[in-house]
Amino acid sequence: MKHTLSQRTINRLTQYHTILREYSKKDIENITSAQISSFLKIDETQVRKDLKSINCKGKCKVGYVVSELKNIIEDVLDYKTTKKAFVIGAGNLGIALSKYSKFSEFGLEILGLFDINEAKIGKKFDNKEIYHLSTLKNKIEETGANIAILTIPNKVAQEVADEIIKAGIKYIWNFAPSILTVPDDVKVWNENLIGSFLQFCAISDIK
Amino acid sequence: MKHTLSQRTINRLTQYHTILREYSKKDIENITSAQISSFLKIDETQVRKDLKSINCKGKCKVGYVVSELKNIIEDVLDYKTTKKAFVIGAGNLGIALSKYSKFSEFGLEILGLFDINEAKIGKKFDNKEIYHLSTLKNKIEETGANIAILTIPNKVAQEVADEIIKAGIKYIWNFAPSILTVPDDVKVWNENLIGSFLQFCAISDIK
Repeated sequence: MKHTLSQRTINRLTQYHTILREYSKKDIENITSAQISSFLKIDETQVRKDLKSINCKGKCKVGYVVSELKNIIEDVLDYKTTKKAFVIGAGNLGIALSKYSKFSEFGLEILGLFDINEAKIGKKFDNKEIYHLSTLKNKIEETGANIAILTIPNKVAQEVADEIIKAGIKYIWNFAPSILTVPDDVKVWNENLIGSFLQFCAISDIK
Repeated sequence: MKHTLSQRTINRLTQYHTILREYSKKDIENITSAQISSFLKIDETQVRKDLKSINCKGKCKVGYVVSELKNIIEDVLDYKTTKKAFVIGAGNLGIALSKYSKFSEFGLEILGLFDINEAKIGKKFDNKEIYHLSTLKNKIEETGANIAILTIPNKVAQEVADEIIKAGIKYIWNFAPSILTVPDDVKVWNENLIGSFLQFCAISDIK
């Protein structure tokens, strides 16, 4: 689903959703913007602005209906459409991401992992198997998955990217700290953990 | 160092730095905004705007001096100040992050890992040892580190957060998908991988 929310707004909405899920589990019916802002230590007007931007209206003193707000966030962020992905690189990060249970709640289904290390092939983590990279094309045809989560060392990143694109991958969520060259019809999202940390440093004045 | 750059600008600057490092290794002296924008598939005017915002001026046709630009980015983003951190939770993600070599280039030094699983205590990864969580206070006093990278399961996140704050941690880079309640003098940065992915989905119209 195409929307025009900024990354920071999307980040906040996923955090509101985490709180709403907790409230929902505890069968609490309503939540106020003050409660949300107090959990996240952000400004209450920011919360209200975000919720207004997705057409959620709270009632004075009562706040928002938890189930409604949760559903609206799930609709806006399109949690209900399953997006099928493979992890490329069954190292620590690849395995960690494939075990990350929250992904499936948000519509991201990791179907399996790929590696070239024969010792790893056939192993399973949480029902996700490690396959040999040479079988990726077949697995893409079988499953319709076209998203790759790339968690491989920098020095082989481009070479492996070329190979998975040839196999049919169209979207690459790149955790390797390298800039990939790809054809125009392939989209790359560089996950920038260090950029995120540096922003934390700047905001918190870490010394 | 306190600056007012947005997260997206910081992200782009770290990516420019990755390219500059490659150029520097190859002893290429100059780089143009067109070259940077072509690598990253972003608008050239965006690159120029970013570099202008950190007081970098290119010369017509010649572009920017690689070593100068690299140094300015390192200064602005304060790479040269070492920020000492411990990873809390020696699971796959914790180990992956402690092995992530790029962090140290950017001033983030991971000194070791902490866990409560006796079977893991004493193991080493890239010269980083896994210690028992009960020794965190001592290790903080020894090293002066006050940043924790939290990579533990959701259900124990709050409990462990309370414990590490008691031990002296002031900054928490939280990879657990949960909202932590902390005292006012402790800063939490929620790493939001799913938020990042959802932004990728929205921009690329992944279905």
